[in-house]
Amino acid sequence: MADVIGIGLLGCGIVGSAITRTLSLHSDEISERIGARLEVKRVAVRNLSKERDVPVAKELFTNDPRSVIEADDVQIVVEVMGGIEPARSLMLDAMSSGKNIVSANKELISTLGRDLFDHAEKSEVDFYFEGSVAGGIPIIKPLKESLAGERLNRVMGIVNGTTNFILTRMSEQGLEFDQALAEAERLGYTELDPTADIEGFDAAAKLSILASIAFNARVVAGDVYREGITGVSQRDIAFARTLGYVVKLLAIAELVDGEVAVRVHPAMLPTTHPLASVRENLNAVFVEGEQVGELMFYGRGAGGPPTATSVVGDIVDVARNIQKGTRGVGCTCYGRTARIRHMDETLCQYYILLEVLDRPGVLAQVAQAFADNDVSIKSVWQEGFGDEARLVMVTHLAVEKNFQALVARLNGLEVVEEVASAMRVQSAED
Amino acid sequence: MADVIGIGLLGCGIVGSAITRTLSLHSDEISERIGARLEVKRVAVRNLSKERDVPVAKELFTNDPRSVIEADDVQIVVEVMGGIEPARSLMLDAMSSGKNIVSANKELISTLGRDLFDHAEKSEVDFYFEGSVAGGIPIIKPLKESLAGERLNRVMGIVNGTTNFILTRMSEQGLEFDQALAEAERLGYTELDPTADIEGFDAAAKLSILASIAFNARVVAGDVYREGITGVSQRDIAFARTLGYVVKLLAIAELVDGEVAVRVHPAMLPTTHPLASVRENLNAVFVEGEQVGELMFYGRGAGGPPTATSVVGDIVDVARNIQKGTRGVGCTCYGRTARIRHMDETLCQYYILLEVLDRPGVLAQVAQAFADNDVSIKSVWQEGFGDEARLVMVTHLAVEKNFQALVARLNGLEVVEEVASAMRVQSAED
Repeated sequence: MADVIGIGLLGCGIVGSAITRTLSLHSDEISERIGARLEVKRVAVRNLSKERDVPVAKELFTNDPRSVIEADDVQIVVEVMGGIEPARSLMLDAMSSGKNIVSANKELISTLGRDLFDHAEKSEVDFYFEGSVAGGIPIIKPLKESLAGERLNRVMGIVNGTTNFILTRMSEQGLEFDQALAEAERLGYTELDPTADIEGFDAAAKLSILASIAFNARVVAGDVYREGITGVSQRDIAFARTLGYVVKLLAIAELVDGEVAVRVHPAMLPTTHPLASVRENLNAVFVEGEQVGELMFYGRGAGGPPTATSVVGDIVDVARNIQKGTRGVGCTCYGRTARIRHMDETLCQYYILLEVLDRPGVLAQVAQAFADNDVSIKSVWQEGFGDEARLVMVTHLAVEKNFQALVARLNGLEVVEEVASAMRVQSAED
Repeated sequence: MADVIGIGLLGCGIVGSAITRTLSLHSDEISERIGARLEVKRVAVRNLSKERDVPVAKELFTNDPRSVIEADDVQIVVEVMGGIEPARSLMLDAMSSGKNIVSANKELISTLGRDLFDHAEKSEVDFYFEGSVAGGIPIIKPLKESLAGERLNRVMGIVNGTTNFILTRMSEQGLEFDQALAEAERLGYTELDPTADIEGFDAAAKLSILASIAFNARVVAGDVYREGITGVSQRDIAFARTLGYVVKLLAIAELVDGEVAVRVHPAMLPTTHPLASVRENLNAVFVEGEQVGELMFYGRGAGGPPTATSVVGDIVDVARNIQKGTRGVGCTCYGRTARIRHMDETLCQYYILLEVLDRPGVLAQVAQAFADNDVSIKSVWQEGFGDEARLVMVTHLAVEKNFQALVARLNGLEVVEEVASAMRVQSAED
């Protein structure tokens, strides 16, 4: 057994800095767990001249990442530089040299993860990535290990803190989307360009990783159907409240007849659902299995210290494996690529708000359009305003394709002024 | 690597039967994960003649548990018989013979666990026990492994489903304790003798296991300060609601100045706290760490299939270790016994309801009693009813001993008719 296990860091931004601090702060406890000290041996950064408030000696910094992955005294390479290249090449080469890898790079893992998983197997090294999904929440290991005896049929998460913050502010303070986004920007909860968050790309990447592990099949970010929250209005939120729902950006992965359905979109969720009480910029992953029933994992989905906790948990795991001369649980997709179910085939419930003319026979025409498209109405509310009226409906489970055809049909009806809004409803009927 | 790994079962009640079903139902996936088939080789039961609906051949049943732990073709002994003896001796002897153990026996682990942990280390076998706490919720492994790089300062759980069901019915349907208990009994949520649940013994046992793992120090059930829910009245619940709280039976473990404080008692919790939305017979464990912030693990805390999921997760872990010729993470208490902080020293907030005479100077006398005992009042409500009045107060953080002295003093005041109720408040101030 080694006395010291060397860590090489690729990147030293918010997460990387937090990792060095956690390793330093908790070094005694960590040494006790491993039976060896962890030492940061080299840190690759782009800008060598930048001042960094980290407990790492200056001479350990380098702007040559190759020197990190090739160092003889580095056994674990921690990749927190992000992006596709050079992160991918560096990790592949590090594996070839027998280095174990811990990464928090969701962008890379959710697109080209396959290369990394395969190469880690071939190179007989550990490749851990708890930090890539839901920040500080332990979810990858519980799914891969604790639930190894379970068959999961659904994973449903609030995995983007920025959008959850915006929706919370819209729900609780009556703000419109633009105002809530400005508040999130003011508090530093957004990236310079908020697109990846508000359009659901970030959530889609995380969902593909969760789905791969939950269903033991490879799913990539591009497989995920995706809608963001820019179209969510204060009116939708107010109607949701009236109906007993709260609006959340949900990332949903389901196993349906052996096929994987993956989607990210705003949805109305009953206020009694455990995910409904996930407020502000917190995250949670809700899991449903045949035997275990419902599980939920809740916590901080982003930020340096929480993500560092996940990364350091992985580092300790890998270090324990090194001490025992073994490896942890590798890729559990067993090379399987999933057949991805098209969004058109998905079953959902829907909320729809129609501005209609207030005259006899309107409801009959609207109801006929629902029937013709095989969408069954669960409940309906009508409010009249002189010549106009407003119809709000919630449907039973319906096929997405049928619902979209229904919306087109309703838009063509003379008595319908406008399909003012439509949103999926995720309730217990699913 | 083995093609088959043999499982020996000690006990085949609700959890044991569910384990055999899970192993059978998911055998293909499990084999893929392990690279070997799991086969139930022997099952020890008390009553051989009982009919059992389990996928295990009749001839594998025995009423001699020794034949299970001594069988050459058994590599993993799964103990789900419960109780202290003979479970303890059987597990110790099985370890001596080199068998790995998976157990869900919270009673034994929370009292004499030390013997088992020490003997597992000496015998160089795995000893896993995810099923002993919070049924299907993965919590032991996340605490031991995922959070290995974190320093935890508090674990707070709703870990008894029966009492949570009773309190939910009292809160949501206005039932009194006796009525809600009768409902729980009717639905089969109680043991024959409900004492262990409603008096908090079950929660205390689970809390001691959680505390041991969270704080890396041995804590036993007897260390836990314990109050049950039999004294919770509908009036308390109604006041809690008015004040923005919900009443829960909380199991709380804290690390204070290197000492462990462990307690189980009913408490008022703000409705916005994530644990407040844990309803019915569900469980959750809320964890607070320095870096990671807040985490919560939620799910079914009891029942055959959920608990079986945890047990089978452990079995898969142990089987993977066998295949690799290694062992998992052993006891993380490192032999340390914690100094247990006496309940008197604990800092809490309190709610107190006083029936007082409605005349001038009463509030002044009461407030003086608070001041004399160094208990600071955070908020106060008064309602008058002719000659009598009711005072409701919530305090700032105060020392338990001071609060108890205050209650004695108030009971002695001529102007106080009765200290009608008092309950701890667990809010963000803590």
